[in-house]
Amino acid sequence: MPRSAGDLDLTFQALADPTRRAIVERLSRGQASVSELAGPHAMSLPAIVQHLALLENSGLVRSEKVGRVRTFRMVPAGLSLAEQWFDRRRAQWQRRLDRLGEHLERFPDGEPKTGR
Amino acid sequence: MPRSAGDLDLTFQALADPTRRAIVERLSRGQASVSELAGPHAMSLPAIVQHLALLENSGLVRSEKVGRVRTFRMVPAGLSLAEQWFDRRRAQWQRRLDRLGEHLERFPDGEPKTGR
Repeated sequence: MPRSAGDLDLTFQALADPTRRAIVERLSRGQASVSELAGPHAMSLPAIVQHLALLENSGLVRSEKVGRVRTFRMVPAGLSLAEQWFDRRRAQWQRRLDRLGEHLERFPDGEPKTGR
Repeated sequence: MPRSAGDLDLTFQALADPTRRAIVERLSRGQASVSELAGPHAMSLPAIVQHLALLENSGLVRSEKVGRVRTFRMVPAGLSLAEQWFDRRRAQWQRRLDRLGEHLERFPDGEPKTGR
């Protein structure tokens, strides 16, 4: 049973591997079968299947088996929470820079000296 | 020696832990000493120091020691490549939806039948 798409630990863990990132890149262009996904990688099929299982467990992708073919597709919502995490960090950082800018405008020569 | 800020494996690995994400969140609001960073966490100081070492090695944060106090700060560029990776996935996904939308506009009743 895949965990919820919102688990940032699993999302970032899933993305911390170049093969898994390449698979997500491939799937963000459209769905693909296991053999299509394995194609570009010099890796055993069981190793690819293990990467796919980890990706599916993270909620970034899901799969469906029709007959003997298992097809994978992206779950865009799986990336959303991670993107939002970056957006919040960026916003916090920007607020910090804004405050610093205001401070430098008010005191271009540094802090006013005490007793002046 | 910290690896380059652009190493996505290390960046995502660093972010795959709630304590390390909390430290990055704290540092995106401003620099902090090791003891300030350890404060909110029910965790031994050596455990925090290990998380900080992993974060510094990923290029997300850097530290400076003045006297006996080591101070950590964010390296915003450390997040940039990871953000760009998400942006590219989002863009690919959007292009896919656009193509699908165009297709549905051209053929609202599905693919034209052969021989019609």
